[in-house]
Amino acid sequence: MAKKTSIKMIPLGGVSGIGKNMMVLEKDNQMIIIDCGLMFPDEETPGIDFLIPDFSYILKNINKVRGVILTHGHEDHLGGLPFLFRKINVPIYGTKLTLGLTRIKLNGLAGTDRIEYNEIDPQKALSIGGFHIEFFRVNHSIPDGVGLIIRTDIGTIIHSGDFKLDHTPIDNKYTELHKISRAGEEGVLALLCDSTNAEEAGYSLPEKDVGKTLLDKFDKATKRIIVATFSSHIHRIQQVLDVSAKMDKKVAISGKSMLKTIKISSELGYLKIPENLIIPINNIDDLPIGDIVILSTGSQGEPLSALNRMAMDEHRRVSIMKGDMVILSASPIPGNEKAISNTINMLIKQGAEVVYESIAGVHVSGHAAQEEIKLMISLAKPQYFIPIHGENKHKIQNAQIAQSMGIAADNTLNIQNGDIVKMNMNVCRISGNIKPKNVYVDGIGMGNIEDMVLRDRKMLSKNGVIFVALGIDINKKKIILEPEFSMRGMIFIENINTILNEGKKILADSVQNCFEDNILSKHRIEDFLLDRLEKFIFKKARIRPIISLKVLVLH
Amino acid sequence: MAKKTSIKMIPLGGVSGIGKNMMVLEKDNQMIIIDCGLMFPDEETPGIDFLIPDFSYILKNINKVRGVILTHGHEDHLGGLPFLFRKINVPIYGTKLTLGLTRIKLNGLAGTDRIEYNEIDPQKALSIGGFHIEFFRVNHSIPDGVGLIIRTDIGTIIHSGDFKLDHTPIDNKYTELHKISRAGEEGVLALLCDSTNAEEAGYSLPEKDVGKTLLDKFDKATKRIIVATFSSHIHRIQQVLDVSAKMDKKVAISGKSMLKTIKISSELGYLKIPENLIIPINNIDDLPIGDIVILSTGSQGEPLSALNRMAMDEHRRVSIMKGDMVILSASPIPGNEKAISNTINMLIKQGAEVVYESIAGVHVSGHAAQEEIKLMISLAKPQYFIPIHGENKHKIQNAQIAQSMGIAADNTLNIQNGDIVKMNMNVCRISGNIKPKNVYVDGIGMGNIEDMVLRDRKMLSKNGVIFVALGIDINKKKIILEPEFSMRGMIFIENINTILNEGKKILADSVQNCFEDNILSKHRIEDFLLDRLEKFIFKKARIRPIISLKVLVLH
Repeated sequence: MAKKTSIKMIPLGGVSGIGKNMMVLEKDNQMIIIDCGLMFPDEETPGIDFLIPDFSYILKNINKVRGVILTHGHEDHLGGLPFLFRKINVPIYGTKLTLGLTRIKLNGLAGTDRIEYNEIDPQKALSIGGFHIEFFRVNHSIPDGVGLIIRTDIGTIIHSGDFKLDHTPIDNKYTELHKISRAGEEGVLALLCDSTNAEEAGYSLPEKDVGKTLLDKFDKATKRIIVATFSSHIHRIQQVLDVSAKMDKKVAISGKSMLKTIKISSELGYLKIPENLIIPINNIDDLPIGDIVILSTGSQGEPLSALNRMAMDEHRRVSIMKGDMVILSASPIPGNEKAISNTINMLIKQGAEVVYESIAGVHVSGHAAQEEIKLMISLAKPQYFIPIHGENKHKIQNAQIAQSMGIAADNTLNIQNGDIVKMNMNVCRISGNIKPKNVYVDGIGMGNIEDMVLRDRKMLSKNGVIFVALGIDINKKKIILEPEFSMRGMIFIENINTILNEGKKILADSVQNCFEDNILSKHRIEDFLLDRLEKFIFKKARIRPIISLKVLVLH
Repeated sequence: MAKKTSIKMIPLGGVSGIGKNMMVLEKDNQMIIIDCGLMFPDEETPGIDFLIPDFSYILKNINKVRGVILTHGHEDHLGGLPFLFRKINVPIYGTKLTLGLTRIKLNGLAGTDRIEYNEIDPQKALSIGGFHIEFFRVNHSIPDGVGLIIRTDIGTIIHSGDFKLDHTPIDNKYTELHKISRAGEEGVLALLCDSTNAEEAGYSLPEKDVGKTLLDKFDKATKRIIVATFSSHIHRIQQVLDVSAKMDKKVAISGKSMLKTIKISSELGYLKIPENLIIPINNIDDLPIGDIVILSTGSQGEPLSALNRMAMDEHRRVSIMKGDMVILSASPIPGNEKAISNTINMLIKQGAEVVYESIAGVHVSGHAAQEEIKLMISLAKPQYFIPIHGENKHKIQNAQIAQSMGIAADNTLNIQNGDIVKMNMNVCRISGNIKPKNVYVDGIGMGNIEDMVLRDRKMLSKNGVIFVALGIDINKKKIILEPEFSMRGMIFIENINTILNEGKKILADSVQNCFEDNILSKHRIEDFLLDRLEKFIFKKARIRPIISLKVLVLH
């Protein structure tokens, strides 16, 4: 009998914070990648478009890679692909809708036509790079999601994907618990389990409950109805369309991403649009007010979204009227709470009645709550339990759920991005970390932003910036162009002009000091002047703006 | 019979967002002020220390002011006083603890010794400026809070203050419902009612419930316990001390504001510190690990707070050890969710077990939920219902609660900061708005920050800034000092140096263009160069940094 090897598993993202999910599995010099997502920025990373996993490890092992398997079509699971595929080209595996959304993402990239897309049929197992993979459908806030049962000679690993249990799903496709149950009977080495909602007690509610609430709200509305939700939440969109049709209303769509996913998902058969229901947004004024539903992006209070433009009365086609009912059919993604509140308050100010999650059942989550996670564990009966898709606090909660069901604390692993997890028939442990970097994407630039840049940005936004320039003649040892100041983002300070005029004198004196001490290097003069000026401004105004100082030198 | 006059009521803060509560009531040329608070900044106002009400209206009517009445000692009700008292000096009314905290705030201000402090005994009514004011105690997250029953010949106005109902309060002082009930029997013209928790169904929980959970958690802890809470939440602090004493532990205190409020509230008799309980934070290493409780600030994830320093392993005295239990005995103030999550995740990373509100009952709110508001309304039976202390969404919910109890929609007013509310015997309506400005406080500066400054700050933090300086000789029409660039907060862009070198050439050409077209004014040259450079940089790098450009001119 051949010597059995071990499995190496490295999460490149998704376990040290929510987002940029990406998991690498390696065995016998072959590697598969599960998901390749992006992560949205927070206040620690102002002005960044998003973060992506550090691909260095993959690029170093490029010859081993056998494919990328996508669990579902959300940005935090596939949004990193365009950046990965700038560097490599490997087969992509995904269900029909997931591949449809992936194609849109990768379109326009150099070499797009050479990408190999493999459609996953959840009822057919695949062998990829020596891993035998069975798929199980999962319910989630986007259709066509799957989890993975990965069988090897060492043992079976289950990757839950993002999942919830919904016994009345809109598309009648249930989370395929029987496959997990069968794997559990055979024996499961490790369960990698979605942690996003591990803090929530009980069960998540079925998607159809939202439909009932929408029907109730639509029934009460007397004027226009505006529903904002996630553009990828096809089932939610389906329910909005169905309720609108039932109530004899017409639906106009606002927001590019909403238009895009409605197009692709109806083309692929995931969204059924009732006939004669959709009208162009430009035609809404031609219909009676009570007949109109506007389906819109912006449920997270995003600054440039359709809903936010309405709230600020800057939307090209829709001005909020008194009595409009705005339904936010979404819950806040952590960090967006304030932006959403601001949007709600502005909409109310414009005269709208606003219906949102905390006061009405207009949203249900797409992630398993505690009792659903318990069901998953009870069926899979894993030897090791590894929380994924979460911050530390979510993973710890998830691990405690497993422990409450009898899994030993030592058999629940709290893994971090970059951890090297070694699995053997009876062992599963963290043996090191590849130390991935934070990779930020901003504009067309992509690279490791120095922490200094982020610190600078925070400083700039808190304290503003003062710019000083002056010109000196180094040979004649004199100032030829007097110091000039300009300020940006600085708060009003009563006597700032007096302070700056005094600052000019200090700079002039300091230049003389340099000349006297024979400090003639441009940089040394700049450093000396900067130090003097910073101290002076703090002393006078108790502020520490960023000061940028240039001495232009005539030789 | 003398002609009856009307009451003019103007909220200067607190009704267009949570914070900077301040209400003006005027009648017969006499004015009283209720509260004078500050408001904490959000992402719309980066780097601001806080906001305060616009006092212009008060300064214009300075001769009418008869006093400031404080409902309780929270910053959003008295934090604006130091700024108001730079301009005026009027009698202050407050209960014992509220005055104690006010004195601390106003200490050091010029003329402090001339301020007239009047202690409110809630059992004694006062006549101030022609208003007959009866006080009723309220339960809240700080002791010694009151609401106001303001009787005039026109009618009675009730101001709820911040309140909840707690039938087992720590200090055995109940919300004095009987006084509201009596006023309701006599007839109430208007009820101004706290809206903060109007979105919450049901009842708020009693403070003592937290004590039970704390006892349970303390019992389970094997190592050190660190409890973070609001420094003004004296009853919570009392419970932490009591539970610690009961479990034979010692308590060390970390955080300046915590030390300050514990000192003043114990001096005034609001906090009873068990003997030999408190130890200096410097001595914690002298005791067995299982005996130590650290009471700390930082429950909102504030960057420089004691708890955050521990989470970042930057605390002077406390390094988190594996097994430390950290209890966040607070709920997130909207906008702080992400900061708190980050703190929790960092603490977990340091090895702590973290207990927080969403997973355990370690906090209860200090504000009335829907059923408590209903009780208040049912007792007061007001003709008009005016939600205060809230954003639009909270006030709308509060108004709907009143409407659900039979108050006509027209008799519920959604007032905004600056609205002039006219009240007569049977009328209560908004007759205009004094248009108060946003007043920001940052460092020692205080003034209206131009919106431009805030826009600049946001731009700076999103895109960074580029400085350019060059020197020209206007007579010889030539560049004497070549353009130099410096950048702050700019993301790494691969070919930025090439771009900037090209930018220098464009600037040089543009200066020549100016000379050729006889554009010789410094400002016109600067505008021309800036425009060219901005367009060039956007074209090349797809970014829009703030560009600050200086042309130094030798005449």
